[in-house]
Amino acid sequence: MTNPKRLEADYILETYLPPEKAAEIIAGEQSSGTFVAVPGETPELKALAAAKVESLETISTYSGVPSLEGRYPANGTMVLHRVKMTLSWPLATVGTSLPNLLATVAGNLFELACVSGLRIVDIRLPPSFFQKYKGPAFGIAGTRRLTDVQTGPIIGTIVKPSVGMTGEQTAFLVQELVNGGIDFIKDDELQSDSSVCPFDDRVDHVMRVINEAADRTGKKTMYAFNLTGDMDEMRRRHDKLVSVGATCLMVSLNSVGMAGFIDLRSFSQLPIHAHRNGWGYLTRHQSLGWSYVAWQKIWRLAGADHMHVNGLDNKFSEDNESVLRSARGCLTPMSDDKPCLVMPVFSSGQSVHQAHSTYVGLQSDDLIVTAGGGIMAHPKGPAAGVQALRDAYQAATAGESLESAARSSDELRLAMEMRP
Amino acid sequence: MTNPKRLEADYILETYLPPEKAAEIIAGEQSSGTFVAVPGETPELKALAAAKVESLETISTYSGVPSLEGRYPANGTMVLHRVKMTLSWPLATVGTSLPNLLATVAGNLFELACVSGLRIVDIRLPPSFFQKYKGPAFGIAGTRRLTDVQTGPIIGTIVKPSVGMTGEQTAFLVQELVNGGIDFIKDDELQSDSSVCPFDDRVDHVMRVINEAADRTGKKTMYAFNLTGDMDEMRRRHDKLVSVGATCLMVSLNSVGMAGFIDLRSFSQLPIHAHRNGWGYLTRHQSLGWSYVAWQKIWRLAGADHMHVNGLDNKFSEDNESVLRSARGCLTPMSDDKPCLVMPVFSSGQSVHQAHSTYVGLQSDDLIVTAGGGIMAHPKGPAAGVQALRDAYQAATAGESLESAARSSDELRLAMEMRP
Repeated sequence: MTNPKRLEADYILETYLPPEKAAEIIAGEQSSGTFVAVPGETPELKALAAAKVESLETISTYSGVPSLEGRYPANGTMVLHRVKMTLSWPLATVGTSLPNLLATVAGNLFELACVSGLRIVDIRLPPSFFQKYKGPAFGIAGTRRLTDVQTGPIIGTIVKPSVGMTGEQTAFLVQELVNGGIDFIKDDELQSDSSVCPFDDRVDHVMRVINEAADRTGKKTMYAFNLTGDMDEMRRRHDKLVSVGATCLMVSLNSVGMAGFIDLRSFSQLPIHAHRNGWGYLTRHQSLGWSYVAWQKIWRLAGADHMHVNGLDNKFSEDNESVLRSARGCLTPMSDDKPCLVMPVFSSGQSVHQAHSTYVGLQSDDLIVTAGGGIMAHPKGPAAGVQALRDAYQAATAGESLESAARSSDELRLAMEMRP
Repeated sequence: MTNPKRLEADYILETYLPPEKAAEIIAGEQSSGTFVAVPGETPELKALAAAKVESLETISTYSGVPSLEGRYPANGTMVLHRVKMTLSWPLATVGTSLPNLLATVAGNLFELACVSGLRIVDIRLPPSFFQKYKGPAFGIAGTRRLTDVQTGPIIGTIVKPSVGMTGEQTAFLVQELVNGGIDFIKDDELQSDSSVCPFDDRVDHVMRVINEAADRTGKKTMYAFNLTGDMDEMRRRHDKLVSVGATCLMVSLNSVGMAGFIDLRSFSQLPIHAHRNGWGYLTRHQSLGWSYVAWQKIWRLAGADHMHVNGLDNKFSEDNESVLRSARGCLTPMSDDKPCLVMPVFSSGQSVHQAHSTYVGLQSDDLIVTAGGGIMAHPKGPAAGVQALRDAYQAATAGESLESAARSSDELRLAMEMRP
């Protein structure tokens, strides 16, 4: 951060205008933005309030078709410029506000006529943001404390089928998993509160199992109950969770939104397992939307404790480089005073086969890994599925190959034979 | 709505798989979604809980490059299918929840590997949604009542420069506009609360002017104060607005998010002027994201009173057909019992020149039109700018040409000569 009184954002811009001209228009949209000069727009005001183009670097100039829908001077192919652009805004006019930050760095710029492609790839916030917003309440240390998993990854699963089971049926499944020594279980994001599986009923049934096992074995599984809903519903559901001794809540970020999420953080006594579903429409075109490096920052500062990063060799559309970049972001401090480190959550088709690449790629085992079928469908049952994953990550951390480790672990050997 | 117990969404899908196969995977992702069959996924459960493919129609099959980033069986060109697809979900597992609706119809589907393009183009909600959510509190009738503009469009402007002026300077500008008989003024979305222009200070200065003019002339200008921020800040700012007799609040939808917005609606005593900035990253690629026809529905049901639709011949990237489709959507009833009609707000480079095409395209003058420079920079001042716009829409409604109407309106004639 060069100037503590400004916030900055980095973009990849595609434009048919000369880059300096496009950048000027974009920065101008963020100050006066009317097509006829207005009396109030004095040079002094512009100096105080205008967005600034901090840097501009043309990556390439080429003939091509614009990436996005728009009203262009010509149809079809035209000369386009791909540009790295950094803009800054004065705190004095934006205010220290995460919601208003979104309107500023990710607002109308995306619709400008001169923009045929725009992606926000990083954000740098001034100190006042770190003073105002709380960051994660639990983060890595708090999650390890609550799960009592002091070293190694936190091994988990997602309740499957995603929806359709009653609270009681869900609890039967949880019983199996808890008996197998699992650290973490989460609802699928499709499951919140419904007539088939009312939230309170699911919580009662599941926590009865978890609490009984905790009394018996000393190990209390962390279950992330998805309480996504209206604000009043989320408050009630949160209080319900606290009343029965649950140790985690889950929420869909794009369903709830930033102001609601900040509010949730303000009253939550539990770690917040943040799910990013909908992320695809925010990111899947390289010339539009957000990179996760930028996006995860705002939610970490707002208070997420766990952030989903997909997984290596996932069943989704994201490549492994992108997954690792996202995960490393979670473990990269956002500021010296308030690092906002969160647990990256690896999911989607995860099994023993990704342990080594995940550990080596992340250079850390501060992570939650949720395996669905990888645990539930182990030939020797969920306990063996959990053990196999632990052994795989243990081997990765020790620099031992999977094959070598499998010689002393039947569970791991059998898991390796489970190919999708 | 064919089945009151299910919700439906329409998509345009692009896939390299045979369409039926891709649709099955997408629907499956919404139920069990694990790569190894799990014990709990009985046929009965699937029947109860699974998403259904209601219809599937291939629009075209062609050789091309996938629209989105992904992990595809081959690089470069492949055979792709463009498909109209309707999916439905049972209310019994989704629950009557707008936030959870988002996770269901606009969640993980966007990231599936078989999806090389996906855009949600419409949504149909079952009756329980209309029973639970309030829709607009004021809508068209309430807005006309509060502005006392019983017929014709509501003529407005946006404060420009967007940011940089103090509350006092803003009020000077407002004084000019109010003296000119303007119906409506809005903050720019960049302006919320900051050290240069604190919210309370701006409200005090502006409402002093508006209230004084109302006492003097009987006309009370509606000023949409942007209160976007954290939930507790928005509550305080709302109460401030009510205490000084303001008649409108403004909020950035993508900054606040759905749960926060529903909460705002639950306590707001004022009409909600909803700004869609950020919309560009949700819509500008034709094979990704949202169409406004779908998106505006959820916010109308959640409680917006005014929804932005850009404007004809705007300075942004949207074409006129899209603008009119969006605006007509606002005036299309969502259900018989709860139509949720909202005022479409036309802005961006608006002037007398778009009056006819806007009226003819919309077939209604139930609209707010905000002109920036078009009003402020009129050669005879803002009063003339306002009058010119009224005369232009009056002519449009009466089927009279602009040129003809200009013969009896100096204000209009001069406005027509103001070209950007």
